[in-house]
Formats: sequence, C-alpha cells, structure tokens
Amino acid sequence: MNFSSKLLENAVNEVSQLPGIGKRTALRLVLHLLKQPASQTHQLSSSLTNLVDEIKLCKKCHNISDVEICEICANPSRNEEIICVVEDVRDVMAIENTAQFKGLYHVLGGKISPIEGIGPHNLTIDSLIEKVNDGIVKEVIFALSSTIEGDTTNFYIFKQLEKYSIKTSTIARGIAVGDELEYADEITLGRSIINRIPFENSL
Amino acid sequence: MNFSSKLLENAVNEVSQLPGIGKRTALRLVLHLLKQPASQTHQLSSSLTNLVDEIKLCKKCHNISDVEICEICANPSRNEEIICVVEDVRDVMAIENTAQFKGLYHVLGGKISPIEGIGPHNLTIDSLIEKVNDGIVKEVIFALSSTIEGDTTNFYIFKQLEKYSIKTSTIARGIAVGDELEYADEITLGRSIINRIPFENSL
Ligand SMILES: [Zn+2]
Ligand SMILES: [Zn+2]
Repeated sequence: MNFSSKLLENAVNEVSQLPGIGKRTALRLVLHLLKQPASQTHQLSSSLTNLVDEIKLCKKCHNISDVEICEICANPSRNEEIICVVEDVRDVMAIENTAQFKGLYHVLGGKISPIEGIGPHNLTIDSLIEKVNDGIVKEVIFALSSTIEGDTTNFYIFKQLEKYSIKTSTIARGIAVGDELEYADEITLGRSIINRIPFENSL
Repeated sequence: MNFSSKLLENAVNEVSQLPGIGKRTALRLVLHLLKQPASQTHQLSSSLTNLVDEIKLCKKCHNISDVEICEICANPSRNEEIICVVEDVRDVMAIENTAQFKGLYHVLGGKISPIEGIGPHNLTIDSLIEKVNDGIVKEVIFALSSTIEGDTTNFYIFKQLEKYSIKTSTIARGIAVGDELEYADEITLGRSIINRIPFENSL
C-alpha cells in the first residue's frame, strides 16, 4: 500500500496486527475513526491501555479481574466446594450467562498442547491441585472444550486428583463434540452443567 | 455479556463500536491483546491517538496528509494541469499504486447522496471550481465509483465546469459497473486511466 501519510500508515500497520484483520480492513477501520469525533478514538485508546496496564488475574481462580480476588470468588453465596475448571474468561462468561452454576471457577489459561508448546506447567494446574489439597473442595467439574487438547488436559488433571476423595465430573454434552464452549447456546450449556456425569463414565 | 471485569467490559464496548465488529469479535481481539506484551497495545493506542490528533487535510487536494501540502501536491514533477477527482484517500492510494497517473488529485470527501444528507456543499467541489478558475488546469478526470451517487456527482461538477475551456474525462471502465474503485486490480485501473474518454461521451 502506498500511503499519503506516515500517521495513517502507522495506524493501519498497528491495527492490522490484530488477528483476522488485514491491511484493507485496518484502513477501513482507521478511516472510520477519522470521520468520528477525536474523543471516540481517545476513549478507545485509553480503554485498551487501561486494560493492559491495570488488569489482574484473580489470585484464587486466575480469571481476569479488576481486583485481587474476583467478584465470583469474593461472593459468599457461591459454593466453594464445587470448582468448575475452564480454559479462559470466555468460558466463565458463557457459564455465568446460564445462571445454572453456583460454585467457583478455576481458569487454566489454556489447554495442554504439545504442538503449541503448552505443557501442564504453563497452565494453573498446580494451583488447582493445591486448592483441592486444602480439603474444602468436594467436586471438580471439567468444562473444557471436547477437543483432543481438552480431553488430554482433563485426563491429566483427573490423574492428579485421583488420590483425593472428591467427585470429578464433566459437563454433559448436548452440543456436538468438537464445538467450542463459548458458542454454545445458553440453554444447552446450562443443561449440560446440570446433567454432568462422573468423569470415569466419560472415558 | 456477563463481564468479570469493568476494564474488560469497557475495552470490549469501545472496540465493538468499530464498523463490522460485534461484541464477540471485540472480546476476541481484546483478549488477544492481553496475551501480547503491553507495549503492543501502547503502540496501537498511540498510533490511533496520534493519527486523529495530528492528521491534516492537504490545503490543495484535501487528501489526508501529515503536512499542510501533501507529498503529491508538493512534488514538482507532477503535472498540475491534470486533476483527477476522487472520493477519498483510498482511491488516491489505488491510483498511485498503478503508477500510471502523473497529475494531481482532488479529494471530494464523498459523493452527493441525498439519502445520506450529503449535498454539494458538504464536499470540496467549490474548491475544485476555484482551482479550475485559476486557469492552470487543462483537464479534469472523474474517477468516482460508477454508482448513481458517483454519476450524479460527476454530472454536477461537469455542469459547473462547462463554462471553462478545459477537457473533462472519466476513467475507462474495464471493471464491472457498480464495482468500487478501491477493489479494482492495478492493471485494469491503470489502463482505465490511460483510456479515459471525454465526459460527454460517457453520458
Ligand atoms: Zn476469582
Ligand atoms: Zn495534496
């Protein structure tokens, strides 16, 4: 592309680094911003820098949070005996939307994936085991996507938890195997939590 | 959406105000940024605020520019006797990419569109007429998209220019009628400039 302006070129280059956004789309977005009041761009920019500068991971569940202990973990009406293991914040949001789960979460931060170089120690698995070791947890629900990586991660954690006398379960799959959790409709996803099955039965 | 963080929610809301970007895509983009070094978000944000705060419109051609007179207008080897009338900066970029045009541009900033409430006086048409009135311009090439709005705009300007003894032409259309100029391939677009025809012949 042959830019008439370095300022424009820089903005387009930065925006086109976002996943799924090519140069042409980036140019369209940037020219759109130029047609809006400058305040919109200032708000956009400061919302992004505030986010990356100030965001925390909850010390208990590792979910994205504005404070050290997230709202869910800090809520005394949530049942701390049941932990739902999920991949990332989008899964927490999806399950919270169903209003079917009153326990706490544990956000792994990903799935075990040798191809992507993600091993158990890149995830928050140790912290989950410690939590179970403390003795309060009575049930761990696996709610990872049912992909090879999700199943591998479930199984790895299941093996680590075997020595504790707790229940392990996986959410029931009314949705197609291989589908991403975050795209499931709320009713199906809510039901799959109610109908969770012992993990051994899912092997 | 049920956000666990106000910072996250604000960022997603701001990003989803961009055209064609829904909440889900915005969330994906924002979570991507959170996985990158914070410096990437800082660069993205400052490139956008620098753009909207510092960008200028060239005083001669009204194209987006970092300086008062853009590189093209300031280039003494460009032929100031030929003016190519375009809608916006993307069309300038597209034509510059062909390397087939050595004249100057005039960026209208849009097309006449009663439906969108854009009249002749919302565009830089007066400034074009003044330029022609100065006596240096010998030819005006219309290079607007061949839509109803583009044709209306061409015709409006053509009528204003009739009293001056200059040539008017439209770029030849090798590309399908109704196609946007910016998506044309370079060869077709370059050829359409070389093969431009007198505007009267296009009526
Ligand atoms: Zn938490
Ligand atoms: Zn200029």
